[in-house]
Amino acid sequence: MGAVDDNLIALRAALADALAADAGIVVATELAGSGYAFADAEEARAHAEDLDGPTVSAYRDASQAGGGAVVVGGFCERGDDGNTYNSAVAVEAGEVLAVYRKLHLWHDEQSCFTPGAEVPPVVETHHGRIGVAICYDLEFPEVTRSLALRGADLLALPTNWPRTVVPPGERSMLGTLAMATARLSRTFVAVCDRAGAERGVDYEGASIIAGPDGYPLAESTDPLASQVLTATADLAHARDKRTGPRNDVVTDRRPDLY
Amino acid sequence: MGAVDDNLIALRAALADALAADAGIVVATELAGSGYAFADAEEARAHAEDLDGPTVSAYRDASQAGGGAVVVGGFCERGDDGNTYNSAVAVEAGEVLAVYRKLHLWHDEQSCFTPGAEVPPVVETHHGRIGVAICYDLEFPEVTRSLALRGADLLALPTNWPRTVVPPGERSMLGTLAMATARLSRTFVAVCDRAGAERGVDYEGASIIAGPDGYPLAESTDPLASQVLTATADLAHARDKRTGPRNDVVTDRRPDLY
Repeated sequence: MGAVDDNLIALRAALADALAADAGIVVATELAGSGYAFADAEEARAHAEDLDGPTVSAYRDASQAGGGAVVVGGFCERGDDGNTYNSAVAVEAGEVLAVYRKLHLWHDEQSCFTPGAEVPPVVETHHGRIGVAICYDLEFPEVTRSLALRGADLLALPTNWPRTVVPPGERSMLGTLAMATARLSRTFVAVCDRAGAERGVDYEGASIIAGPDGYPLAESTDPLASQVLTATADLAHARDKRTGPRNDVVTDRRPDLY
Repeated sequence: MGAVDDNLIALRAALADALAADAGIVVATELAGSGYAFADAEEARAHAEDLDGPTVSAYRDASQAGGGAVVVGGFCERGDDGNTYNSAVAVEAGEVLAVYRKLHLWHDEQSCFTPGAEVPPVVETHHGRIGVAICYDLEFPEVTRSLALRGADLLALPTNWPRTVVPPGERSMLGTLAMATARLSRTFVAVCDRAGAERGVDYEGASIIAGPDGYPLAESTDPLASQVLTATADLAHARDKRTGPRNDVVTDRRPDLY
């Protein structure tokens, strides 16, 4: 918090690391440039930026440097309506494909942001169709299922998950939710979670990339360390919704009864 | 398969073991009396029974012997319409509270059963409100969310989950789905899964009881062994949907946008 220039340097470096690892799709954390633990709405507003601002510019630049990479990342948005939003952007080859304003606000975000009023987007990219949601949205199966039914091959979730108590031998519930979300609709799910601490808020640091079978393709090994997780994923696999010779998680639905 | 009398003896013994362990709510497997791996519709029809049949009678008797216990278990139902259903019954103190006919049929069940035409029920019992679904239904968040929103404190799922390939160090995806389902709506979830093998079908044997925080309260330790899993659960905890001082998984929903 409060060291935006340093944050942006670190963000650009992390994006460059991911691109150097040949990433075609990169997901960054929620509110990556500004930090998360705002004291109040005024402080959030002071960090808000539009689509030409420094955080989105970092995403745009990275997506161009990557020769057509897709970057999904969070930023503190100054809306043209004057409101402050906890938003994520999806960019490809320097172009903004979609801006999503978080629908479900966690804890003190409610004091700092206006909740979004539109459903999360699914964007068509050269690497597949990507659904964008943010952190706490993952707890609403209405949202994640909708993204999958609207064609998302990958759900990309910039996340800042405050640290929870995890029983010995278990993974963070964030990981379990990401895995189940992936498995239920046979999509890929990529959660980029914040690590370390900030103004007394400890983060889970539980980034994960899960495949359509639900199991992790890559997973954070250290809640305190900044890491670049990579996985090789053919997003076309997410278009095969079969779970067996006679079953399909989409066509087996009974929408007349839901 | 084919040893119904032995199955019923084993089922009655397992129910008695659970009641001897002071269970107020007991969940048995899917198609507990008949077995699961029917060759065809004709064989399933030959094993179908009505609410006075031997499997439901075992559940009714157990619920009376338990001095008011609730039993949820699966049976092969002969409907009054002449169709064969993969059903579950919820009984309390000898009385049938609800019959549920499985909505989503897995694999060769499609050759043997007529799919249900009504949403899964939530029954009010002396031990709390119980939502009933069966096995593959767990893969449809539309169903599990609906049960929770209609007031279920506990989701009880008789299950016969065919064996899957589980990566080393991971639990069965059945367990992960049960945990995420519990956590997303802050309910208890009890999955009674078949163990062992039958006519060449290996079962997962991955029974689990998960609490509203998503973590297991009890979990199968052996996919081959018949086990009685018990957990102490105050179902009233499932009525507290808060996940933080300012958050609630039900009231934070944005139904205008789903």
